[in-house]
Amino acid sequence: MTRILITSGPTRQFIDPVRYISNASSGQMGSCLAGAALELGHQVVVVSGPVQIDYPSDAELIRVVSTEEMLEACRDYYPLCDGLIGAAAPCDYRPVEVANHKIRKTGQALDLKLIETEDVVATLGCSKQPHQWTVGFALETEDARFRALTKLIRKCCDLVVINGVEAIDSSENSIEIISDSGQVVATATGTKASVARQVLATIEQRLIVPKSSTP
Amino acid sequence: MTRILITSGPTRQFIDPVRYISNASSGQMGSCLAGAALELGHQVVVVSGPVQIDYPSDAELIRVVSTEEMLEACRDYYPLCDGLIGAAAPCDYRPVEVANHKIRKTGQALDLKLIETEDVVATLGCSKQPHQWTVGFALETEDARFRALTKLIRKCCDLVVINGVEAIDSSENSIEIISDSGQVVATATGTKASVARQVLATIEQRLIVPKSSTP
Repeated sequence: MTRILITSGPTRQFIDPVRYISNASSGQMGSCLAGAALELGHQVVVVSGPVQIDYPSDAELIRVVSTEEMLEACRDYYPLCDGLIGAAAPCDYRPVEVANHKIRKTGQALDLKLIETEDVVATLGCSKQPHQWTVGFALETEDARFRALTKLIRKCCDLVVINGVEAIDSSENSIEIISDSGQVVATATGTKASVARQVLATIEQRLIVPKSSTP
Repeated sequence: MTRILITSGPTRQFIDPVRYISNASSGQMGSCLAGAALELGHQVVVVSGPVQIDYPSDAELIRVVSTEEMLEACRDYYPLCDGLIGAAAPCDYRPVEVANHKIRKTGQALDLKLIETEDVVATLGCSKQPHQWTVGFALETEDARFRALTKLIRKCCDLVVINGVEAIDSSENSIEIISDSGQVVATATGTKASVARQVLATIEQRLIVPKSSTP
């Protein structure tokens, strides 16, 4: 039995009690990946930021808001799982200071000092056990393959799925899957459901079956 | 025939092609206000930021993303309307510069310089015609009545509806309506639909009927 942890959706990093930094990730790709993994008979745990969509009812669902909460939930669940698919778009910057009260408009510019949040996929990927695998997602607006491969290396991933900004909040997607040797091992274009099946087929072929067949 | 312009939902101010500043406004209150206005036989135009909820099909709906787009749409429609209910939570800060490409993580802090966006309700309220009226919303986390009244004055509103941060993305709301003399002229607590009916009843009584009865 393979148990797969899937992160999905955006996270929010609050500036004050009302305003936050986020992105338009809808969680659709994460939901389709959960569905495709369940279809293959795997167990699925989804850690999702705030989204409106539904996840498959057979998946265990943990809801979070911030990147810190997503990382904390993943730290709890990854040791119980065989692999991670990091399909979420966690906020990778957070304000250094979060105001307790709604920031008042004064007519002046507001200097917001942001620092990087801890990287969820890198934290899990680079501390994984030998039997575990990690698949990251890269959303790049330029020089996509090169940047995706550097992400794969930095985040200790086995595979990285490249998609473009046009995938955000869309029902379709167009992806390339890059291996740790920098080869394009699969491509897919179409509905997120069909693309998710291709991602899972590639994971099954390259990461699950070989490890399962090892005595 | 009274024609009412209602702004609803959040807006988004992009930092780069992926990241943006926003808030968790769901558009529910705007949708309920549209429903309550239609129930009273008024025509309704809704200018809404990105939300998942549906608006009444009898309302004319204009979808926008940024505060600038919301203001532009309102500038087009307000001259054709008798009144404005500003129930949206437009982003009131925007980055001075919007990056063309996804900002790369460098391990360093990111200084984001924000400036205020143009205020939608103030721009419309303070340039309205004598026959027009303006109702603003104030979401305050402290000193609510005082701040709401200063907003009413600054934005040239006839009434301001105060609600709290707990209203965001909730199906319930608790409000006070403040007049331009600083009096609490109505209060309501309950579902957003029932609260919206109270807001419309107050508008009807104080802003529509008196103006309609003037020869």
